[in-house]
Amino acid sequence: MNSFISPVPLDKAYRLINHGPTVLVSARHDGVDDVMAAAWCCALDFAPPKLTVVLDKSSATRRLIEQSGVFAIQVPNVALLRLTNAVGGVSLNDAPDKLARCGVELFDIEGQPLPLVAGCSAWLSCRLITEPHNQQAYDLFIGEVTGAWADDRVFSNGRWHFEDANPSLRSLHHVAGGNFYAIGEPLAELP
Amino acid sequence: MNSFISPVPLDKAYRLINHGPTVLVSARHDGVDDVMAAAWCCALDFAPPKLTVVLDKSSATRRLIEQSGVFAIQVPNVALLRLTNAVGGVSLNDAPDKLARCGVELFDIEGQPLPLVAGCSAWLSCRLITEPHNQQAYDLFIGEVTGAWADDRVFSNGRWHFEDANPSLRSLHHVAGGNFYAIGEPLAELP
Repeated sequence: MNSFISPVPLDKAYRLINHGPTVLVSARHDGVDDVMAAAWCCALDFAPPKLTVVLDKSSATRRLIEQSGVFAIQVPNVALLRLTNAVGGVSLNDAPDKLARCGVELFDIEGQPLPLVAGCSAWLSCRLITEPHNQQAYDLFIGEVTGAWADDRVFSNGRWHFEDANPSLRSLHHVAGGNFYAIGEPLAELP
Repeated sequence: MNSFISPVPLDKAYRLINHGPTVLVSARHDGVDDVMAAAWCCALDFAPPKLTVVLDKSSATRRLIEQSGVFAIQVPNVALLRLTNAVGGVSLNDAPDKLARCGVELFDIEGQPLPLVAGCSAWLSCRLITEPHNQQAYDLFIGEVTGAWADDRVFSNGRWHFEDANPSLRSLHHVAGGNFYAIGEPLAELP
């Protein structure tokens, strides 16, 4: 955890994922925490903010979400490249010590029942909007964003500032097989 | 159009959008073509490849897709920054000459009934999987990818090669209000 975590107004929350980063999904139920990586997470609405995330039926995190009805989406960064790849490569079903093994440090915000991953660049708490057909047929889950926070060294005043921040805070964009790009440079604002 | 367009095997098609680029959505029905920009497009499945895209009810492109049942998703690049911003800012409903005004040049591939945008870095043809509840309640559309192509100067052998290509071919990642980042540098492959 760091001391640079600032709340993000809900009407700006979509901006945390609008540029398409690979995310970490975390959930807690009955004393069990899990964290997985997901490249397939996407904004769905502005107000109230919603998002989609694809969760395979084999995922232990998915089971926790179905049980608790809440989850967190967080935006990992270059400093968490190894962790992000690691939590995407092993299941809690096979390794009860997955989180320790992957070097995941968890923290809470404002007493929410969500295990948040320390060191990310942004965090979104979500309430599951249950849609059985989507979940069963497509592994597609919809969440309403109920809270948002960011590391204010890289996101402030409703904007990412990757270009002015330490490169270790840049978001990760997975292609396949452990091959990631970092987000790059801003493009000139258009009139 | 350029002469560097190569087919991408369907089992690698998800890689064209896995890193979260902002896309262009195009469709044709009854002699009418339209193109819009969408940051909310996401892979949904590997085989057969599927994707989701969020299309507002006010969108003329959406109407064409609902009528024709097919659409294209394409990955624009830095060279198309102005075009991408332009087609995202005006509707065919208000400006029948939208495409000309925005500088959009269309082409066909393999006789498909789809207007593809010249100069992009990748193209995916899609068949709409009709899901009335998702479309009505969430503006969420699901497509099955039926064909994929890429500019082989920047995507070949199943991989993006942004770092070796002309920077004008890098994908665009919209944050908000015309503020985009380009995709950045590859991160060291992990063991």
